[in-house]
Amino acid sequence: MTQDTDLPTALNLPPVDPLPPETQKYFDICTEKLGLVPNVLRAYAFDIAKLNAFAAMYNDLMLGDSGLSKLEREMIAVVVSSINRCWYCQVAHGAAVRELSGDPKLGEAMVMNYRAAHLEPRQRAMLDFAEKLTEASHRIEEADRQTLRDHGFSDRDIWDIAAVVGFFNMSNRIASASGMEPNEAYHGAHR
Amino acid sequence: MTQDTDLPTALNLPPVDPLPPETQKYFDICTEKLGLVPNVLRAYAFDIAKLNAFAAMYNDLMLGDSGLSKLEREMIAVVVSSINRCWYCQVAHGAAVRELSGDPKLGEAMVMNYRAAHLEPRQRAMLDFAEKLTEASHRIEEADRQTLRDHGFSDRDIWDIAAVVGFFNMSNRIASASGMEPNEAYHGAHR
Amino acid sequence: MTQDTDLPTALNLPPVDPLPPETQKYFDICTEKLGLVPNVLRAYAFDIAKLNAFAAMYNDLMLGDSGLSKLEREMIAVVVSSINRCWYCQVAHGAAVRELSGDPKLGEAMVMNYRAAHLEPRQRAMLDFAEKLTEASHRIEEADRQTLRDHGFSDRDIWDIAAVVGFFNMSNRIASASGMEPNEAYHGAHR
Amino acid sequence: MTQDTDLPTALNLPPVDPLPPETQKYFDICTEKLGLVPNVLRAYAFDIAKLNAFAAMYNDLMLGDSGLSKLEREMIAVVVSSINRCWYCQVAHGAAVRELSGDPKLGEAMVMNYRAAHLEPRQRAMLDFAEKLTEASHRIEEADRQTLRDHGFSDRDIWDIAAVVGFFNMSNRIASASGMEPNEAYHGAHR
Amino acid sequence: MTQDTDLPTALNLPPVDPLPPETQKYFDICTEKLGLVPNVLRAYAFDIAKLNAFAAMYNDLMLGDSGLSKLEREMIAVVVSSINRCWYCQVAHGAAVRELSGDPKLGEAMVMNYRAAHLEPRQRAMLDFAEKLTEASHRIEEADRQTLRDHGFSDRDIWDIAAVVGFFNMSNRIASASGMEPNEAYHGAHR
Amino acid sequence: MTQDTDLPTALNLPPVDPLPPETQKYFDICTEKLGLVPNVLRAYAFDIAKLNAFAAMYNDLMLGDSGLSKLEREMIAVVVSSINRCWYCQVAHGAAVRELSGDPKLGEAMVMNYRAAHLEPRQRAMLDFAEKLTEASHRIEEADRQTLRDHGFSDRDIWDIAAVVGFFNMSNRIASASGMEPNEAYHGAHR
Repeated sequence: MTQDTDLPTALNLPPVDPLPPETQKYFDICTEKLGLVPNVLRAYAFDIAKLNAFAAMYNDLMLGDSGLSKLEREMIAVVVSSINRCWYCQVAHGAAVRELSGDPKLGEAMVMNYRAAHLEPRQRAMLDFAEKLTEASHRIEEADRQTLRDHGFSDRDIWDIAAVVGFFNMSNRIASASGMEPNEAYHGAHR
Repeated sequence: MTQDTDLPTALNLPPVDPLPPETQKYFDICTEKLGLVPNVLRAYAFDIAKLNAFAAMYNDLMLGDSGLSKLEREMIAVVVSSINRCWYCQVAHGAAVRELSGDPKLGEAMVMNYRAAHLEPRQRAMLDFAEKLTEASHRIEEADRQTLRDHGFSDRDIWDIAAVVGFFNMSNRIASASGMEPNEAYHGAHR
Repeated sequence: MTQDTDLPTALNLPPVDPLPPETQKYFDICTEKLGLVPNVLRAYAFDIAKLNAFAAMYNDLMLGDSGLSKLEREMIAVVVSSINRCWYCQVAHGAAVRELSGDPKLGEAMVMNYRAAHLEPRQRAMLDFAEKLTEASHRIEEADRQTLRDHGFSDRDIWDIAAVVGFFNMSNRIASASGMEPNEAYHGAHR
Repeated sequence: MTQDTDLPTALNLPPVDPLPPETQKYFDICTEKLGLVPNVLRAYAFDIAKLNAFAAMYNDLMLGDSGLSKLEREMIAVVVSSINRCWYCQVAHGAAVRELSGDPKLGEAMVMNYRAAHLEPRQRAMLDFAEKLTEASHRIEEADRQTLRDHGFSDRDIWDIAAVVGFFNMSNRIASASGMEPNEAYHGAHR
Repeated sequence: MTQDTDLPTALNLPPVDPLPPETQKYFDICTEKLGLVPNVLRAYAFDIAKLNAFAAMYNDLMLGDSGLSKLEREMIAVVVSSINRCWYCQVAHGAAVRELSGDPKLGEAMVMNYRAAHLEPRQRAMLDFAEKLTEASHRIEEADRQTLRDHGFSDRDIWDIAAVVGFFNMSNRIASASGMEPNEAYHGAHR
Repeated sequence: MTQDTDLPTALNLPPVDPLPPETQKYFDICTEKLGLVPNVLRAYAFDIAKLNAFAAMYNDLMLGDSGLSKLEREMIAVVVSSINRCWYCQVAHGAAVRELSGDPKLGEAMVMNYRAAHLEPRQRAMLDFAEKLTEASHRIEEADRQTLRDHGFSDRDIWDIAAVVGFFNMSNRIASASGMEPNEAYHGAHR
């Protein structure tokens, strides 16, 4: 278990102390399951309403039901974070790609250049859409949605791709703006 | 009151029918207060868990306590949405800037080029940070945070600026990816 | 009628005083027809030769015979001015699009993202060409001209599209460089 | 003397035939003084009103009274045309810089990278402004104008710089959109 | 020892067979020291003159005498390769940074966003110069060189920084153009 | 013969003195054949090992056997150097294109905008690849290589194109970083 004692960002926003029992329980579960409390959660803990809203959206999006596998959602997370060069999210979600895929090389490719990963066409189309939506969202049109449908994605899947791309375009910016540091344990995990 | 009967996006994701009573009540309150149910809420209504997570985060961020005024948060929303050229968010939040400020010209400036607005230095610094965080988040560093502090923003204010910038970088992309159309009533409101 | 008494730009270049009789007559006609003298004309009035050259080119281009309707020329004007984020030209010509089309939403779409306007293919091709010519003129080649011809534009029409795109790439820069302010009356007109 | 017989652009827009006597006289003077009729004038000769408006603006701007020397105006013309990679204008105005300066190397530097020219600070500031106004006109603010004033430029000079920058951002696009070819004689002139 | 049997690029350029004795000896030394023959050397082995020229420049630059440590040269290599998103060079030289520094986190930061590495000012200035030289070399001027001198770099050091930045801007492009794959062993090395 | 006596860059790195006999002989041959010692060689002469590595790679690449003509290699050199706006390389290799082609206009087109040169499709495809590899090497994929093969290039030719593009992306940066000045004689040569 990693115990990070410093503040997780460059902002002087210490967690509420003591944490409410439900939050403490949530963090204890994280420690039990992951061996750590992700610093993004520790960063939000200065305001429990904000923490809960973030966690609810995250858990629905990344862990809830979807036509996209959890690995695919993590692949999108890393590709978006790589375009935005977000330190926290590349480290944390790069580890998740390595863990879920059992393929450290895939995690590196998502960080470095997803074109190097020699993916099946369906996943490649998903990441091409994620890149365009991150770099030039104003150019997305019906033809882009249709390309995804032609690769077998449903309209619900398209929503989920968009929502994951959107979510990491949000959290990348919050992490970069606040100077968020990833937990040390992510770096060497699942190599 | 505006009654939009078509789907609010280009995706075939109709709302759950009937809406759960709590959701119906929320939409009724929107209609009563705003004269419409914002299409972004109608768009999310295909999945109530997603709708609730979105609404919880939105309400905390844009309507909750903050060192930023509601108008300032809407100004950030429009500047971010203008950089990303998001049709839905520029229309809907441009109307909000006009309403909260009573100054239609300010709403136009946020859409067209915030530099034209001749703002006080504090608000200008806030929008300069929002622009940089949207266009090049990987270049944000301690000096950028310090500039905000030098203009009187607290570390909590900096978090809130980052969170609003992040949120609209998310919702801009979800709206553009899904082809979300703004409610007609926004266009002429508060001119 | 709006009566702007301050200088229309941030440059200390007052109009010649008194104006020559022909110029005064031209300005009187503007006031009679438009309810105002557009600030761009007032800005040029420090030098009557420059004013006359500008007005002659503008009137030929925007009001003279062309295979493009006046509305189409104004649509191009706003799309170019939106890419360049010119405060003066988006405000003034946005009002013109609203007036000529009777469709305030169309004016907003030209400012915010012309892809949102759901145009007929001919007008869409015209604006795609305008965007490319504004953003990357060195990449225009015969294939781009042929695309316009395939949408029914004549070679003379192509010249006119290019000339309008060029003209606003000029005036956007003169307006931005000089800090030109639009007349107040434009903001609320034809909403 | 060069006699170009083909159409000067890729558009099928032949000159009016015969030219009106005044136009013919103007072209004869060009041939006498320059040894050629610049292709940009031949290109506009399909419509005499457009030709006259263009020529009036060009002559006022590039040959009329100004605090900028004719060479300085041509230097701006080439720097703008280089950023826009306009074939016609770099060739024609590159020759003008060589002629007016008697320094072929200066002409090359304006085309290739004006930073290489080791200019006096006043001219360097003028070209830095021209570059910014061409590449990111929406970021021009009072501080940029003040920098020019600090280098000795009057407000009228600033207008003239802006007007030349604007003019070539227009003509670069008309030339590129129409596929305009420079007269052969420019290439070797004043080397 | 890793034995890669396939061609190291997407181009059908097999090595000369048999390798000349000197080349074979060089490759044997690589295998002995590194446990592998770097695929970039195997890629060049279709032409021994090209291989020798590449190896001579590489060895002088990265292994020869310099005011820059070998680690610093590898840090530059990875930062440049990250900007260019070169799969081969990020993998291979990321491993080198991990090995030379004994700090896997430093290797990740060079790949993901060098600003996250909290470097001493001298190394930060070195990487800022490398970034600018990679992204906008035409904007490098005397002030940029002077900044390096102010951080204690000699003119020879500046040359070496430029030469390493230049070299990887070359090899990134050769690797990307040819579809070069890194040796498998790099991925997990020195984690 | 041109005799440049000052240092060829802005770095205080004088040549070793006296030059080793082999280097002196090489420079004498340059003077005899070219009428000058190219400043890039004089710049490298502060370190003979670096000079030799550079010259070996340059001579193999630009003068050795290849499916690309020497003129084609110089055309690539200038197009790359134009994108990077390298003063030294555009001047020196622009002269080489003029010399090898006997067509000064071709040299200008490579500097100003290669699309203006009306090349045969094979050479146009070669330069399009060079542009993409210079501007966005991470987007090069098998389809780009196949386009070159479809125009008749062998895999060895593709390597050579990539190697020339890469080499000038290196030398452009070394020249710009060091403030390298071209020999005066290049400017007027072969006009």
